[in-house]
Amino acid sequence: MSWVLRVDDLSDLARGAAFFGTGGGGDPYVGQLMVAGAIRRYGPITLVSPDELDDDAQVIPTSMMGAPSVMMEKIPAGHEAVTALGVLEAHLGVTATHTMPVECGGINSMVPLAVGAALGLPVVDGDGMGRAFPELQMETFTLFGVHGSPLVIATERGEHVIIETGADNRRMEELARAMTIRLGGMSLLASYSMTGAQAKASAIPNTIALCLSVGRALREARENHETLTDALNRSLAGSVYGRASRLLKGKVVDVERRTERGFTLGLARLAGEDGSQMEVTFQNENLIAIRDGEVAAIVPDLICIISADSYEPITTERLRYGQRIQVLAIPSPPIMNTTAGLAIFGPRAFGLDYKHSPIKADLVPVSAARSSEEEQVHTMKETQR
Amino acid sequence: MSWVLRVDDLSDLARGAAFFGTGGGGDPYVGQLMVAGAIRRYGPITLVSPDELDDDAQVIPTSMMGAPSVMMEKIPAGHEAVTALGVLEAHLGVTATHTMPVECGGINSMVPLAVGAALGLPVVDGDGMGRAFPELQMETFTLFGVHGSPLVIATERGEHVIIETGADNRRMEELARAMTIRLGGMSLLASYSMTGAQAKASAIPNTIALCLSVGRALREARENHETLTDALNRSLAGSVYGRASRLLKGKVVDVERRTERGFTLGLARLAGEDGSQMEVTFQNENLIAIRDGEVAAIVPDLICIISADSYEPITTERLRYGQRIQVLAIPSPPIMNTTAGLAIFGPRAFGLDYKHSPIKADLVPVSAARSSEEEQVHTMKETQR
Repeated sequence: MSWVLRVDDLSDLARGAAFFGTGGGGDPYVGQLMVAGAIRRYGPITLVSPDELDDDAQVIPTSMMGAPSVMMEKIPAGHEAVTALGVLEAHLGVTATHTMPVECGGINSMVPLAVGAALGLPVVDGDGMGRAFPELQMETFTLFGVHGSPLVIATERGEHVIIETGADNRRMEELARAMTIRLGGMSLLASYSMTGAQAKASAIPNTIALCLSVGRALREARENHETLTDALNRSLAGSVYGRASRLLKGKVVDVERRTERGFTLGLARLAGEDGSQMEVTFQNENLIAIRDGEVAAIVPDLICIISADSYEPITTERLRYGQRIQVLAIPSPPIMNTTAGLAIFGPRAFGLDYKHSPIKADLVPVSAARSSEEEQVHTMKETQR
Repeated sequence: MSWVLRVDDLSDLARGAAFFGTGGGGDPYVGQLMVAGAIRRYGPITLVSPDELDDDAQVIPTSMMGAPSVMMEKIPAGHEAVTALGVLEAHLGVTATHTMPVECGGINSMVPLAVGAALGLPVVDGDGMGRAFPELQMETFTLFGVHGSPLVIATERGEHVIIETGADNRRMEELARAMTIRLGGMSLLASYSMTGAQAKASAIPNTIALCLSVGRALREARENHETLTDALNRSLAGSVYGRASRLLKGKVVDVERRTERGFTLGLARLAGEDGSQMEVTFQNENLIAIRDGEVAAIVPDLICIISADSYEPITTERLRYGQRIQVLAIPSPPIMNTTAGLAIFGPRAFGLDYKHSPIKADLVPVSAARSSEEEQVHTMKETQR
């Protein structure tokens, strides 16, 4: 089903995209401003489910690459991704009928929307990660044999770089990363050019609509003093994702963070209200949550840190000492949890020496958690007066 | 005038190319083996003076990029430069009629010869440096407004990268360097695609023939116990270069060398037989020779360190404590010594805080120098018995 995205939807969409960013993907706020500007200038954007695509449609995804900590400071000029798509069209001798996100989390939910608006192209409502991941080969597209290259990087100066690595999407990541680092740690791309048939087979469907729905649910949960997991699970019902559960409620007691190899790397130490201790390690995104020495959740499952006060997702580059937070986890779409999927998205793909294990939710009874949350939202309201 | 290069010419050509490498450009020995193999397989190579080119000829130069210290260890598979030329042809929608060196010093005198042999293309006898320089924008082609990009890097794995930076050849260098570092510190390129008319206007002519002649002169000087500068000046007579003079005769007392930013950087400390002290600073190539606190020679003039025993040029990555050497200098072609030329090739282009100043030759009277050299060659012959 196709649907139309309007300016009024963007703040909910950005919140949902930050949630699916699982700590990474870059803060979608800059992207939100880009898309709002593009819609005001060019009109609303049409989104199309993968299953509506003609088999011979020509889909050229657009995206941003880099360390989220750099993306906060190096703002795109605006034309880069449009240029990248045009260069890739010329290089391949094709004309794009659609653009598409390569990841639905963070700023990359927004980049193709701005491109779609500027070029009058419908945007495929789906992506290749179903969340955010730090590396370009970590795509369901890879799982289905779609070549990421030729990949085009276009710069704010009008220069471009075309990278061709055949079927080797991991090598494409390595070369594009080197170039992105040289360009200041952030770049805009066109890659994973594919047919409608390929997009239909390989994309995780309807993830932009889901970001919008989850972003709205988070806002409404805050407004209505609703338990976070209940609100989320209403949105997730009927999707390819499992049910959300809570891993921890507490506060941030320490953050280590560095920009290295073109990534934002580090870990957050969290203290639970119930006395439990948690460490969340991240490479742009949250990769693993260890509670009291045990794995509570690990990639490809989604680990999301949410402000306990505002219900806004907190990205890894914005984690600070003293923040009151909830840590939530959601099982990934089943395709990512197969043997082939884990080879691309699983712990070892990130150098983590763990097997994938199911999410271990917080042990606090649901009713207790709920009353505690309600009390806290109430306290926040009090302090806002 | 066109001429034919044969396998028997290659060791003299390699010696001359190492000389014009002015310490850098990579040891031409590996290139010599590549060209010998290509000639044996495909037949001799035709070289063509720039002034013989049709105006609408399509010249696509081929070259190697990287730190000479890496080139000693990371040997090309052989097909990379041929692939790069083919990718650039396809990207531009043209068919090359010729290939050409971008620098005549070091291994880059050899790369286009191997490509020419493999593809049956004549090679333009000329280049854009008239020696070796460390960076891609340091070309007489740049001086005449030829765009270096689109530039193609092809790897031993069959991958390629196309870099487009419009008229900005320095930016092309920066992006290609980042990619070359990621590829292990060495890469093979096609760049500076140009018409016959552009090559005619911008190339330093007949530098491959001159490398061959100088390489032969060095060998004959050794065989005939002739003074080095006399032999060189016979070869250089009538060329665009000035007369060779000697800066120092002595030995290497210290070498500092590191691979950094994709270059071989460092300096050599030399002690003269006459008690003088010299420091030669290099970035791949020898940039400046300071004798007893005074500049004796500086870029773009050529500073060459030659083994006093064998008359073989010594590249910066092969300088060792204790080597007996002569340091020679040759004024660059006049085009490089103009205001526009010095902006590209002069001291400040290398971050050296010096003005260009004329070469200050060794003060030892010629007759004394000659007798000392003859004596030494004699000594060497004695020890070889």
